[in-house]
Order: sequence, then structure tokens, then C-alpha cells
Amino acid sequence: MFLFNAWYIVAEPDEVAGGGIVARTLLGRRVAVYRGASGVLVGLDDFCPHRLAPLSLGTVVGDGIRCAYHGAEFGADGICVRVPGQKAVPPRARVRTYPVVERHGYIWIWMGDPAGAADESSIPEGFWVSGDPAWIGGYGHIESIRSDYRLINDNLFDITHAEFVHPESFGGVEVQYYRNARPGAQFVDQGMTFEIGDRSIRFRTHAARLGLEGGPLWRSMVAQSRGVAEWNEPVDFRMEVIWWAPIYTSFHISVRPADEPDAAPVEIYNLHAAVPESETSSHYFYRSIRNYGDPSMDAMFIDAANFVFHQDKPILEGQQAVLGTRDLLDTDPISFAGDRLQLEGRRILGRLLAAEQEA
Amino acid sequence: MFLFNAWYIVAEPDEVAGGGIVARTLLGRRVAVYRGASGVLVGLDDFCPHRLAPLSLGTVVGDGIRCAYHGAEFGADGICVRVPGQKAVPPRARVRTYPVVERHGYIWIWMGDPAGAADESSIPEGFWVSGDPAWIGGYGHIESIRSDYRLINDNLFDITHAEFVHPESFGGVEVQYYRNARPGAQFVDQGMTFEIGDRSIRFRTHAARLGLEGGPLWRSMVAQSRGVAEWNEPVDFRMEVIWWAPIYTSFHISVRPADEPDAAPVEIYNLHAAVPESETSSHYFYRSIRNYGDPSMDAMFIDAANFVFHQDKPILEGQQAVLGTRDLLDTDPISFAGDRLQLEGRRILGRLLAAEQEA
Amino acid sequence: MFLFNAWYIVAEPDEVAGGGIVARTLLGRRVAVYRGASGVLVGLDDFCPHRLAPLSLGTVVGDGIRCAYHGAEFGADGICVRVPGQKAVPPRARVRTYPVVERHGYIWIWMGDPAGAADESSIPEGFWVSGDPAWIGGYGHIESIRSDYRLINDNLFDITHAEFVHPESFGGVEVQYYRNARPGAQFVDQGMTFEIGDRSIRFRTHAARLGLEGGPLWRSMVAQSRGVAEWNEPVDFRMEVIWWAPIYTSFHISVRPADEPDAAPVEIYNLHAAVPESETSSHYFYRSIRNYGDPSMDAMFIDAANFVFHQDKPILEGQQAVLGTRDLLDTDPISFAGDRLQLEGRRILGRLLAAEQEA
Repeated sequence: MFLFNAWYIVAEPDEVAGGGIVARTLLGRRVAVYRGASGVLVGLDDFCPHRLAPLSLGTVVGDGIRCAYHGAEFGADGICVRVPGQKAVPPRARVRTYPVVERHGYIWIWMGDPAGAADESSIPEGFWVSGDPAWIGGYGHIESIRSDYRLINDNLFDITHAEFVHPESFGGVEVQYYRNARPGAQFVDQGMTFEIGDRSIRFRTHAARLGLEGGPLWRSMVAQSRGVAEWNEPVDFRMEVIWWAPIYTSFHISVRPADEPDAAPVEIYNLHAAVPESETSSHYFYRSIRNYGDPSMDAMFIDAANFVFHQDKPILEGQQAVLGTRDLLDTDPISFAGDRLQLEGRRILGRLLAAEQEA
Repeated sequence: MFLFNAWYIVAEPDEVAGGGIVARTLLGRRVAVYRGASGVLVGLDDFCPHRLAPLSLGTVVGDGIRCAYHGAEFGADGICVRVPGQKAVPPRARVRTYPVVERHGYIWIWMGDPAGAADESSIPEGFWVSGDPAWIGGYGHIESIRSDYRLINDNLFDITHAEFVHPESFGGVEVQYYRNARPGAQFVDQGMTFEIGDRSIRFRTHAARLGLEGGPLWRSMVAQSRGVAEWNEPVDFRMEVIWWAPIYTSFHISVRPADEPDAAPVEIYNLHAAVPESETSSHYFYRSIRNYGDPSMDAMFIDAANFVFHQDKPILEGQQAVLGTRDLLDTDPISFAGDRLQLEGRRILGRLLAAEQEA
Repeated sequence: MFLFNAWYIVAEPDEVAGGGIVARTLLGRRVAVYRGASGVLVGLDDFCPHRLAPLSLGTVVGDGIRCAYHGAEFGADGICVRVPGQKAVPPRARVRTYPVVERHGYIWIWMGDPAGAADESSIPEGFWVSGDPAWIGGYGHIESIRSDYRLINDNLFDITHAEFVHPESFGGVEVQYYRNARPGAQFVDQGMTFEIGDRSIRFRTHAARLGLEGGPLWRSMVAQSRGVAEWNEPVDFRMEVIWWAPIYTSFHISVRPADEPDAAPVEIYNLHAAVPESETSSHYFYRSIRNYGDPSMDAMFIDAANFVFHQDKPILEGQQAVLGTRDLLDTDPISFAGDRLQLEGRRILGRLLAAEQEA
């Protein structure tokens, strides 16, 4: 079941550069997205109303698109403006368009009731590229993971699985605070607080003088930022995680050598989106942005994120294979104490889905 | 929806040479086709009535076929003539056969009401191999394109798409005459005439002194026939296209240097068949025959035809992916002026299908 | 249709050595099988009751298994014994287990009514590894053949197909005795006797002074056992074949040079199991055990068995492709005299299936 009235990441900016037309299935519909000559972003059903050829096989012409098959041209509004060899354009010749915007370094599409598109509150603020050149990073995505977006959601903001699935990166003791999270907005040392909003869940943790019992990744960040091979001294660690319905999760991590209280913190944002493709598959978009190093390190960070996600992938696809077309919650699964926030997220999603179905 | 009462190309002659047994699915049925020792052509359901092993895995024995599994032998009439190790043959042991003939350089099968097979009018005359050694050429086919045969039909005799899909071969100005075709049987300069028959559509065009605005392929033909690298002088061009229901299209092209009115024309026949495999897939057979050059050039022509069809393939398969299991016309598509003949073809096909359903 | 109340081969011992966890679908269910630290064998549904991740992605811990995703641990009885980070274990947290035993060199699972598992009569005695080091051999299996287990059964103990499918190995005149088998328990020269039991069929044959008209494999056995390139003298041949419902077939072959009545016979056991995976696919397990040569020859024997089965595979998968989801007997096939024992096997299977459905 999909939430239609929300903004979804549909492409990375590079994918629509140079006349590129992105073909992607979202929420079960094939859409094409491109950037017109004037810079306008256009999203439309990926088929020509003439003979149903995919428009994504075509060519961007000005702000419009020309079908690869018979050359029919459509404006950015989806209305056919030219049929080669005839003067009149059939009045019904138009293709459905979708609102598309560029925000925070991504291309977003609205596939629900067009009236709702003006409300951009479902585009999470956390998904930005700072104008500040001190913040750098890269993009990555994986097409068509055979896993429902909700299973990927669950995975992303349930950090306790890191202990078992990602021990060599961020599976240290600090992820275990998640299980005993309590309401609040402060950074509590050796603990975790959470806030549940209408469409989001936030949680924060802090660990002073975190040593080798912490996730190896945090010490690597210090080492990378200083150009040294490793860093084994204690660090002060803080992490803020935000999940926004329906599919966005951001990790903000800040690390500082514990013995250098005046040092600038080494920071990273990891941004994730589990974009629904079909009822049983998803696209996975991710970014890794940091306040240190230089762009030559971007590829390493994207590779690392890709590596971590490929540790999750067999689990996510295995879950879906077991589920078939059922939703997890319809199987009456056992839940653990550590699932509390995950279930809150499912609850928020369920409420939004129910409200949309009703309307 | 398939038209059963028609002759379909099922194989190239080489495929049944030397005891070869062709296994192919046509109109949703698996058939096996072979040539017996006496030269007789045999087509039958591709399964043994004993344990349902594919007969195409077996061996041609005389005019019959022996099952690979237990050695049962069937005559050219499908009747079992031998069961190894037993004297009596079970009376029910027979396999359904289909009329098969060789005509015009292809092997054809009739899968409809056997009573109708005697009528070979659905084997188009245009699909020939001349006995005249001056006409040479080769064969090619592509198995199982994920596209309904009607979409391929539409593609084949709607030449206007060449302007957009095949500009570097035959997408010159002359294909645009198609859009303004008018009834008639003459070759009209800079125009096109068409004739609509009960089961066929023919159209013809002529272009005197066609220069660089014409399809590059026509000038290549002259260059090839004279063994020169290129030909950039104007040519007199004529083309006759015939579509025969349900699936055959022939292009006859004749080119002559415009300044050499007495030169022998350089001619080519391109023959295409969109053979239905399933409701959403087809086999594509094609030939390219010409009156110039030598057999060493055959492979080049087949490669060129293959290249052109692979330009169409993503469009055809894209259309089918959009359609799913629907027929194009059930989606209420927009039609253009240039679709007139294509729609006439669909109309002919629809009438034949309706008549067959009724009977 | 599956017979649930029977023991099925689920794995080779090597697959569960060193903490290996086997993931395999049997009778349409995904199961995981492993050996615990104490040596106990465990079989369970291949999903964690928490979030449905495949347990086969996890780790063996003592006699239990730890889920790869969130670290929940389950004992050999399937009861959850530990949830990381919380003291209490949810009472419902358990996974269904299946009886698993090791017998005769294989790991077997019981997926039916647990009450019936104590009865091991469906584990055929013939599937053994002798403690006698004189008997040596190897293992092989092919995952997921797209063929129903009953088609593979039919194939395995219908030896007449060897004449056509395996002429270069065991397709000699002696397989033809099968067609004229008559009741009895003796080894009859140039003939075959059979016994039909409640859940098994046995048949035996003998051929004195079998020469070049016999299967080439028998003479190869003598050559191999004596380390010579070939053996072309007559041999005394005997073969006993046993099929046990639902899926096991054993071939016991004994060969001796006809002119050396006091020589020790050269013997081989070929063991086959057609383990149901889904309604249209199977796993195929096989062994080849012999009383001659040394272990360095094992790979050759397994390769040979694999070669022979790959001669059958296109036929078996071809039959299934023709059948779709139908059972062979529902298609009203023609049967030959040589199908008598095969049909008796189908009858036994049908009776067992009906009895199980009724209960």
C-alpha cells in the first residue's frame, strides 16, 4: 500500500543533466523525468498517448519532450504541441504530468492529488546540500531491491541491528541505547531520548569518552579528518537520527577527540530514502555528506555506504521472499522491546495511509 | 487474439536441413517441424502422447520422428507406428499434426481448421526466392520479442517512424509521403498512393532526382552495386510496400542514378514476418534479397536488417511493457493522420479475427 | 501434491559441517537445517518469528541458532532463549522445528505430522554408507530442477529409457528385460522379476556372458577395477533396483568376468532421490558407491552420474513445460507395456497421498 500524497525522491540531479531522461517506476507507475532547456523539471507518465511508446526513450526538445517513435512533441505541461506532418494536433493528445521540484540536492516528484503538491512539508529539511563548501559528499542509489519500502524503513531507523549486521562499522555499544530510549529532546550521555511527531520520529544519543567499545566508524572519522591511519583514543560521540514519513531517514553524527574539548567536531550526515517501486520492491537512494576531507574521498564514502547496504540487502530480500505479497504486520510477528520506535513509525505510516484511503 | 486460419512462417529451410527439428511456440502452442527423408515436411504438437516429452528432442527416422525418451516412432501423419519392445501399438497413440509447406523460401504451417489449409491464399506471393540467380540474399530471425505481433505489424508498414528511429538508413523525406497517401495504384512522384484489399494494403511512392534529403540507404545501394565507397548523386527512387494480413510486410525498393536513365535499376526486397508466439511475444523473421553484388555481401545485409530491427526493439518491448496484456486499441490511443493505413490494417485484422471467432 | 508424512533427504552431511546452515525449500516450505555443537541436527522454518528474516543467514550458537538481523537466539527446540538487550523473552517467540536425523550418509527431515516421525520406515535401508572401508564413493546434487518429483521418479526406475537416452553408458540389451518383467524374487537369466510391496517396488535381472550387446558401463567397471584401459570380454551381470515411495531409487549392480567364476564381483550402488521443492520443481540428490578403486576416482563417478542426469534433464524439464501445473496422469497419456512398474509406483504414491489427504 502506497502513500500517494507525499513528495518522493525520483532522481539524482546528475541523472537529468545533459538532456538525460530518467525512466523509473514509482508507486507502481512508470514515470519519466527530465530537465528542460530553461531548467524546468518535468515529470510525466512514461508513455506517449499515441502508440504508448515509452517517452523516456525520446529526446528533450526545449522544455518539452519528443517521442522516439513518431516524433510527437509534448510541452512541459504534457500537452502535445506538434505532430510531425500534420497541422492540427488532436485535442486529446496529452500526457499526464506530475509536479517535480529540486530540493536539497535531489529531484522530487508528487504523484498524489495534484491539489496537495503545493504543500512541501513532506520534503524533509534534513535532505540538503549545504551551500557551504565545507560540506561535501556524494550520491548513490540501488535500483529495484526486492523488498517493500516499509521493511527498508524498519531497517534504517532500527539501529540495534548494526550490532549484528554491521559490527565492523557502526555496531558499537552506543546503538544499544536505542532499546531503552525514553521520551525527551536532550542528548543524554549513555542513553537515548526520542520525540514522536505527527509525521516524524527523532532520537538522540551521546557517549562521552567512547573507546574501543564504540563503533569503529566513529574513530575512523577522526583518523580520516586528520589524515592518519587510525585513531584509538576515546571520542565524544553524538548522534541524531530523524525519520520522516513515509520513507526518509537521516543520521547526523558528530565526533570529537575526548581529550580535545575545543577541537572542531568531525561530522557526517547519512541520508537514506526507501522509494516504493512496486508492492514488493523499492529504489534505495542515499547520500553521505561530511564537513572534512576533500572530494577525492567521496567515492570511498559512497562505496562504504553501498557496502553497508549490501549487508542488509540479503536480509531485506529474504524477509520479502518469506512474506510474498503480505505486509509484515499482517503476519502477527513477535516484537521486542527494541522495536518500539519502529512500531511508532509503522503506526504513523498506517495513520497516514488510512487517512488517504478515506479521503 | 490470434488468427488461426492462416499460413504462418514457422522456420527457415536451413533449420530443417540435415535432420534438424525446429521447436517453436506459435499462437500459444508448442510445435515441432522437420523434413522427412523423402523431403516431406511435417509439423506436429511438440509432445509425445506417451509421457509428454518434447518430440523436438527426438530424431527424424525416415519420414517419421522417434521420441528421445522411450523411442516411440510416429509417422508423418502423427500415427504411432512403433513402440519399442511391444508388438501392438496402442490405437490412441497419435500426435496432432499440422499442414506444413515450403513456399517462397520459407517453411509455413497451418494451425487452424485443417479443412482450410488447402487455401494457400494467405501465403503472400511476395515472399519468394527467385529461381533467377541474379537475385540473392540471406535470412535472419529473432526469437521471442516481448511484443505482440500487431505492434510489430504497425511498426513495419508505418514507414514514418523511420524519420525518427532509423534516420541513418531509410529515414529520408520520401517516407513522409506516407502521411498524405491517397487512393490509387500509380507511382506518383513526391507522393504516395495506396490500395486497400480484403486482406492486404499496398502503397507505392516515387521520388525523381532524390538527393541528400533522401534516405542514405538508397545511395548506399548504388554505391554497393558499383563497388564504390559512396554515391552522392541524385537517384530516381521507387518503393512498393505490401502488407498481407495477418503478419507479412514486403518492401520492394528500386533505385537508379538519375542521370543514367538507361542503367539497370538496383533493387532490393526486404521481407518481414511478425509471427505470434504468445499474447505478448512474437518471433520476427526477415529476409533481404537483392539483384546486385555477390553472396559474400549477404551477411552485411542481414546484419544491417538486424541493426535496424534492434532500433525498433526497445520501443516495441516498451509499448508492450506499458500495455501489459491489453491490446493497444483497447487503451483508446490518440491517432495521427499518418496512422490511416495502419488503422486500415488493424481493421482488416479485426474483421478476420471476428469472422473466425464467429465461425 | 506432496506426501508430507515421510522422511526426505534435505542435505548432505558436508553441507552442515563447520557450522554450515542449509537453506532449502522442500514440499513448498523454506527450511533451514544445521548441526549444533553437541552434534544434534536441527531443522526449522527458515524465518525468524520476529521480523521474518531467514534464519539460514544466521549463525549456529551451541545447539541453537542466532538470527542474523537482531541477534535473537533459538534453541534446538525452536524456543527463543535470548533477545539481546531485554531480560524477558516473549512467550510466543518460537519457530517451528522439524525432526531431523542422520541415516545412511544423509541428513533427513520429517515435515509431516510430528507424531509420525518416530516411524523411520520411510528411510530406505538401501541408502547407506557402509562402515566397511572397502565401500567408497561420493555425493552430488542438483538444485531446483524444473520438474515435478513424480516425473523424476518415473525416469529413475523406468530403465528402458536408457536405450535411447543413455546408450553410451547403461543402455544395453539387459534394460529391455524390464518390459517383460514378471512377478518373482529370483535373479532370472535374460529376464526380470519384480516384487511390489506396500511402499516399494523391487526388480532384479541377470545376464550371463553379457558381451558387447550389454551396456558399456558394465565392462568399464571391470576395466576400472583392474586398472586397464578397457575390458571387452563377456561378463556375468546382475542388477537389483529398488524404488521406495515416495522418492528413492537404488541401483545395485554386480559384474564379474564370465570366465573367472571365482573372481570377486565388481559392485556399484547408485542412489537417487527426487526431493520435491515446489509443485513443479525438485532437488535431485545422488550417490555413487563402489567396492573397488580408491577415493581419487570418486569425482569421476560423480561427474559421470551428473553427465547421465544432464541427459535426462532437458526431457524432464520439457515434460514439465508441456504439463504446466498439471500432473501427468491428469492428461490421460498413452501407456506402453514397459510402463507397468512405473504405473505401479504411481499407484502406490496415489494411495499414500489419498490416505494422507483423508487423515
